[in-house]
Amino acid sequence: MNIEIVTIGDELLLGFTIDTNAAHLARELAALGVRIVRRATCGDDADSIATAVREALERTGAVITTGGLGPTADDMTKPAIASIFGRGMVLDAAILQSLEERWLKRFGHELPASNRQQAMVPEACTILPNRHGSAPGIWLEDAQQRWVAMLPGVPREMRGMLADTVIPHLRDRLPAGGPVIRARTLRTANIAESALADKLGKLARGVNGLSLAYLPGNDGVDLRLTSYTQPARETEATLTGAAQLVREKVGRFIYGEGDDDLAALMLTECATRGLTLAVAESCTGGMLGMRLTAVPGSSRVVQGGTIAYANAVKVRELGVAQGDLDEHGAVSEPVARAMATGARLRFGTNIGIGITGIAGPDGGTPEKPVGTVWVAIDLDGEVRAVRAILPGDRSEIRYRAAQLALDRLRRAFERDQDPVGWTARG
Amino acid sequence: MNIEIVTIGDELLLGFTIDTNAAHLARELAALGVRIVRRATCGDDADSIATAVREALERTGAVITTGGLGPTADDMTKPAIASIFGRGMVLDAAILQSLEERWLKRFGHELPASNRQQAMVPEACTILPNRHGSAPGIWLEDAQQRWVAMLPGVPREMRGMLADTVIPHLRDRLPAGGPVIRARTLRTANIAESALADKLGKLARGVNGLSLAYLPGNDGVDLRLTSYTQPARETEATLTGAAQLVREKVGRFIYGEGDDDLAALMLTECATRGLTLAVAESCTGGMLGMRLTAVPGSSRVVQGGTIAYANAVKVRELGVAQGDLDEHGAVSEPVARAMATGARLRFGTNIGIGITGIAGPDGGTPEKPVGTVWVAIDLDGEVRAVRAILPGDRSEIRYRAAQLALDRLRRAFERDQDPVGWTARG
Repeated sequence: MNIEIVTIGDELLLGFTIDTNAAHLARELAALGVRIVRRATCGDDADSIATAVREALERTGAVITTGGLGPTADDMTKPAIASIFGRGMVLDAAILQSLEERWLKRFGHELPASNRQQAMVPEACTILPNRHGSAPGIWLEDAQQRWVAMLPGVPREMRGMLADTVIPHLRDRLPAGGPVIRARTLRTANIAESALADKLGKLARGVNGLSLAYLPGNDGVDLRLTSYTQPARETEATLTGAAQLVREKVGRFIYGEGDDDLAALMLTECATRGLTLAVAESCTGGMLGMRLTAVPGSSRVVQGGTIAYANAVKVRELGVAQGDLDEHGAVSEPVARAMATGARLRFGTNIGIGITGIAGPDGGTPEKPVGTVWVAIDLDGEVRAVRAILPGDRSEIRYRAAQLALDRLRRAFERDQDPVGWTARG
Repeated sequence: MNIEIVTIGDELLLGFTIDTNAAHLARELAALGVRIVRRATCGDDADSIATAVREALERTGAVITTGGLGPTADDMTKPAIASIFGRGMVLDAAILQSLEERWLKRFGHELPASNRQQAMVPEACTILPNRHGSAPGIWLEDAQQRWVAMLPGVPREMRGMLADTVIPHLRDRLPAGGPVIRARTLRTANIAESALADKLGKLARGVNGLSLAYLPGNDGVDLRLTSYTQPARETEATLTGAAQLVREKVGRFIYGEGDDDLAALMLTECATRGLTLAVAESCTGGMLGMRLTAVPGSSRVVQGGTIAYANAVKVRELGVAQGDLDEHGAVSEPVARAMATGARLRFGTNIGIGITGIAGPDGGTPEKPVGTVWVAIDLDGEVRAVRAILPGDRSEIRYRAAQLALDRLRRAFERDQDPVGWTARG
């Protein structure tokens, strides 16, 4: 099935907002075997919406739009597209009622007038329920089975509606056994893109006919294998076999697959082992605690932590020796070790994690350039520390420092002291 | 000047990555008066790159590409585009040397073979230096002044190169006094989009002929005024006048303009007043500390904080009364107040900020639904507390809770107790 996407919004056209919906749609539909043959972006006026959707409809007979369903002034998507199908607009009593109830329940007052128009829909359309927001989606179809699915622009709402209604709907219309595009991602931490390519050698350009892409991010470099030509029933085995070959080359730098979050993996590991955890953060200022507690249920493991930004706090709250600060500086092995142990003892946990570093832009020296980070893991009294020189700007260095700490916890569980890929001297 | 953008990468075509570069380019070029007439996305193969760029070049004679300049296997942008101009590839000694020096300095070892090809460039091209990465950009131009600017795909590198070289280059070629697209953004916090529309009344649809867009995000709702038709010398005054009208309607819900960060504004405010700050975080788990310390120089103000995730930690570290926990629960006014004061006293600061809430997905009750957050500000012993019921999923609720805390600090400085827009009962 060929399909076209029309993303609606002056925001997108002028680049005021980033179109995350198009990427999500492309990914989900490709996995289904639906091919996106064209993508258009148009502004918030009825004419360009009608023109873009009409053209797309004439080419493929199947169009998904995103955006233009919200409560504010710039919403004319529904009437513009209804006009293509020669349909008028009618008030949907059920939508109006659910909007009114939602507002009363959520905000404790009545639906503002500016939101009432969200209950207007094209004649003879199918309503697509919105679990995540107030604006429902619309499915319009004519006698020739040409259809337009109108989804909200808010990514969370669009994604929910795509999964709840549009994808099941499309699956019913697709022939079985056609080729699908499926990917398997292996997530690595603390090793550079080019070092991965060197480890992979011959496999660096592709594995068993699957493409291999390198996706560097703050979590690390993701390795993605993609199958473009096989039917759904064969792809999983092919991807699994290729992933195994990559694992053999890259080894323990791989911490997970897909959208595995290293913080969530470590929390599960701690919970399985019945271990509790506390953090002591200097340069990351709470980011590691934030990442750990972002995971629902983290309270079973995470007791708390100390944000020890000032050196006086490191000494008073974590028992860092003033002498170590004077002699080695705040970014040093003894200070990181003392912070980890200080957190473990202060919060009475099994694990203490200490992070101290120079996030920049200032504070670097020839001996300790910006990006220098010391991380220490105290696991039931056994302390391991490592230094890395992390690339990037302040925010990247901070995020990578938190990711490094989580990765060193993983290594500590594995009794594994592989060097850090960021630096030959780590 | 009309221009076309070609973004390169299988990632983008399949939606595996989100195209943030296109949005940034559109914004920067619109502000310059350059019009983007078309945007294409193509995959990482020489043919489709050459085809897309050749077509664009024939239409406008001016093309910017992003992506395909990295060290990994899927990079053929430079040779593909050189072929359009009938140029071969040559090794650039200066680039090779800088690459070698950069690697030795940064990573302590020699340039991997896989990175050497970054030093290959088209014959007779202009090198665009890359302050932020190893892959330089390329400017290719023929006798008819038709040009292609090749920029890296990594957003930070692309943005730096655009600002350093491409925009100055384009400015020289543009006629003076033409219409430009300029925008002014007013940032609001803790008020809903529809409540803003109601406050703005007649202005809700536009101000003095300028469009007004509502951009809801986790920081709050941004209000953006945009001028599309005026020459550069007139736009600033028009935007300033319109912004003033909006400020009169929306009042103190506006905390800043442009990309102002509320954390950075509050740090400046504290520094100006000579005040120090400490945090006590439960549901946000360190996010407020993370946001504050994300700002360079924050150490003058931020001493540290306590991540008090477990109730036992709230009692032991912050002096929260066990009786209040038993009687009112962890998400309650007395607990938030005690956390704020506990942080101020423990870290010996002027300001203590306490956050406690139910981020979900579990833990909600009819009396305290998911999203219920109590925030308290202790400013030199004077404690203010507020409750809000924040919308969104776990991560949105957490981010909004930190933003709410920063906004209440702002209100505390203003001795201002406007209710929270998220709830009629806040």
